[in-house]
Amino acid sequence: MDLIRRIEEGQGEFLLFALTPPRLATDRDRAQEIADATVARLQPLDVDGLILYDIDDETERNPAERPFPFMPTLDPADYLADHLRTWARPVIVYRAVGKYAPEDLRSWLSAQDPKRLMTVLVGAASSSSRARTSLMGAQALLREVNPRLALGGVAIPERHSRREDEHLRLLAKQDAGCRFFVTQVVYDINAAKDLVSDYYYECKARGLRPAPFVFTFSVCGSMKTLDFLRWLGVDVPRWIENDLEHAADPLEASYKQARTTAIELMSYCRTLGVPFGINVESVSIRRVEIEAAVKLAQELRTQLKR
Amino acid sequence: MDLIRRIEEGQGEFLLFALTPPRLATDRDRAQEIADATVARLQPLDVDGLILYDIDDETERNPAERPFPFMPTLDPADYLADHLRTWARPVIVYRAVGKYAPEDLRSWLSAQDPKRLMTVLVGAASSSSRARTSLMGAQALLREVNPRLALGGVAIPERHSRREDEHLRLLAKQDAGCRFFVTQVVYDINAAKDLVSDYYYECKARGLRPAPFVFTFSVCGSMKTLDFLRWLGVDVPRWIENDLEHAADPLEASYKQARTTAIELMSYCRTLGVPFGINVESVSIRRVEIEAAVKLAQELRTQLKR
Repeated sequence: MDLIRRIEEGQGEFLLFALTPPRLATDRDRAQEIADATVARLQPLDVDGLILYDIDDETERNPAERPFPFMPTLDPADYLADHLRTWARPVIVYRAVGKYAPEDLRSWLSAQDPKRLMTVLVGAASSSSRARTSLMGAQALLREVNPRLALGGVAIPERHSRREDEHLRLLAKQDAGCRFFVTQVVYDINAAKDLVSDYYYECKARGLRPAPFVFTFSVCGSMKTLDFLRWLGVDVPRWIENDLEHAADPLEASYKQARTTAIELMSYCRTLGVPFGINVESVSIRRVEIEAAVKLAQELRTQLKR
Repeated sequence: MDLIRRIEEGQGEFLLFALTPPRLATDRDRAQEIADATVARLQPLDVDGLILYDIDDETERNPAERPFPFMPTLDPADYLADHLRTWARPVIVYRAVGKYAPEDLRSWLSAQDPKRLMTVLVGAASSSSRARTSLMGAQALLREVNPRLALGGVAIPERHSRREDEHLRLLAKQDAGCRFFVTQVVYDINAAKDLVSDYYYECKARGLRPAPFVFTFSVCGSMKTLDFLRWLGVDVPRWIENDLEHAADPLEASYKQARTTAIELMSYCRTLGVPFGINVESVSIRRVEIEAAVKLAQELRTQLKR
């Protein structure tokens, strides 16, 4: 079954692959080469859909020095329209709504084909940042101009660890039209289980069907990438840091950790009765890390029940 | 290989079963019946050794109301000597050292057979409590009067989550003669992995061989038992609490959680290269909980490599 119908019917067991568009400075031909190489790499994987991230400069979120400099990328909607025409399956385009004027969001949202595209609307990183459009404003726009476009929201287990109300935020998003949720990258399995568990039991108490929960995994080949994940707000348990720091092959260690965590989360969600998807994120530009992400997706595909 | 030799040689993959002696008020005949029933139950399990806990009134540790009233029990050393003669394998007797005068500890320690018995010396629960013997004092007594008696220490992953120095405490205990460590009951897998990981890499940095790490598991059949675990200082993740609260059969849910956590910890320790043992704790007096603990030990036995 097609991903969009699957999500509409509240069914899980699907696989996504997430990309960041090439840097803004990339010329047209090179961007096309990158897109073609990506599609060729993903073709054998039987991925149900692609996620395209919308990168925002999050320095307002965290005053500590950013481990990697912020590099603006091509707009994911433009990248999709201009370069990914050979990708036949559904695409989930992220929109960091604070970056856009309401008129621009309105015209983009109204132009999208709900049979081919879904969107995840992401609010501004920090309440102090000056958002051109608020998350609630963007959600309302979508309902107004293209109500059949499937909407997703972000789920942040780490926020749940600190505030214990992320499940209520998700239910508010569901109320505003969200049909699925995508986590940020999961390193702390208990934080992810705590969130999905609280979400599930709150759905049950309210008589709601849980929406598919998409868990994101990535491989991390260096301590610098790990620092960056932490800067972004990901809780990385100490043992994972130790293993990566001491491993002869940190990428392999990270691969195994991600696989173990993903398989355990799948099993947990099946027992609980929450539909779930798996999203493998490839955000590095290093070839070995891209290949490890593809391999992870390939292995996790075999764990999904279809 | 015998458990005591195994521990002396720093080898893992062993199974322990832990008991609390019957209540102090139990008469001699009834205590013998309980002991005989326990031995009969454990006989088919191929358990490498028995742990006998020494229960202390820990109200000084926690000012909140104790979910279960404190019930003094028979002294584990007396219970072993008087009632467990038919148990042929090694026994690890806990000593809450603060309860005993140094002379009493000295005479007990010197009378023990190092081929049959090991001891875990436990310091007073709180620094404010008036301990008749300190942990360091008791360790020194052991070295003086019975240096061949294998000594173990307690390992508390939760303390590591808060203070990040539990691995250094373990190394200080190792320095004082400890040959193995036993955790309190594990519900938070990341806390346990963090501790064993930091311990392992610190051993490596100091050129020491890691001592066997014994992970303790239990089944928990009711929310009241869960409250009691929390009162004792065990971190129980929210999702585990949710599952137990909503499960048609909380005991079965708890059983599955313990099995999953134990198997994942075994796999993690094997990858890391830390020798480990598994300890299944049966502290309840309810028959169904005792039987579930026995079943858990039986199943985890099949996961150990011999």
